[in-house]
Amino acid sequence: MPTQESIDRKFIQQSIRMAVENVKQQQGGPFAAIIVKNNEIIATGTNVVTTTDDPTAHAEISAIRAACKKLHTFELEDCTIYSSCEPCPMCLGAIYWAHLSRLVFAADKKQAAEAGFDDDFIYKEIDLTYEKRKLITSQILTEEGEAPFEAWRNNDLKITY
Amino acid sequence: MPTQESIDRKFIQQSIRMAVENVKQQQGGPFAAIIVKNNEIIATGTNVVTTTDDPTAHAEISAIRAACKKLHTFELEDCTIYSSCEPCPMCLGAIYWAHLSRLVFAADKKQAAEAGFDDDFIYKEIDLTYEKRKLITSQILTEEGEAPFEAWRNNDLKITY
Repeated sequence: MPTQESIDRKFIQQSIRMAVENVKQQQGGPFAAIIVKNNEIIATGTNVVTTTDDPTAHAEISAIRAACKKLHTFELEDCTIYSSCEPCPMCLGAIYWAHLSRLVFAADKKQAAEAGFDDDFIYKEIDLTYEKRKLITSQILTEEGEAPFEAWRNNDLKITY
Repeated sequence: MPTQESIDRKFIQQSIRMAVENVKQQQGGPFAAIIVKNNEIIATGTNVVTTTDDPTAHAEISAIRAACKKLHTFELEDCTIYSSCEPCPMCLGAIYWAHLSRLVFAADKKQAAEAGFDDDFIYKEIDLTYEKRKLITSQILTEEGEAPFEAWRNNDLKITY
């Protein structure tokens, strides 16, 4: 019976190989992710931002979309995501929204930053107040913005997520 | 000549109407977003998580993907994104990756939290160290994780993003 540690090593090594291959095959950035349930692979994903004209097509998001499509669900409880690199805030957010149970990664955001990726910059931006962010940000019509939530509360047929 | 303020109000009001309609039509959560360039709408998006089995299909991400598809690009410089609600960390990350220039929103993450959405929780989780997060997280094989970045640095044909 393989240990959890050896299983984790196996899937992380596979994600690293996939990420290297993704670069060599000109598919996109140096990232790959694998979603596993009961030690079986549900879906994999690599970074295909530049080849699909989709800035959200990071490895983890690609894997989450593929896994959900395969399982016909929008929630991936009891699944582990293995990523060749620490997820950026977008992908970490997606992991929470998908309700994945566990995250294992190899390289971290500092290594990603050294290779020219904005992960660390975006983590820092998120922590700033709106006025201090590089992204010009303003909030208007806050009260009117309550209307969609009002409609949501009043909708008895809503499907929560 | 309309002022920027009146233009912003117009698009935010439209996003709020779209978000209300999205709920009434059972398309998904109470959120909508509009991407605008030179005061013209490039694309819109609503939350379609539950109707498309895609936990990443938030309004902003749907709008970004649609705008990029329309403009055949993975970068949306000189575009503004109008969102009926403050973007969650996933969507804020996507806004940075898409290089949007400006963000305008109405409701904020506290209002979203009161309506039952995890935005605020996820913002708090991101700020915690790995060990303190609800998501079970571990980093392994950090050194091996450098291999994809090594391949990236050595690839003269890479397309950066």
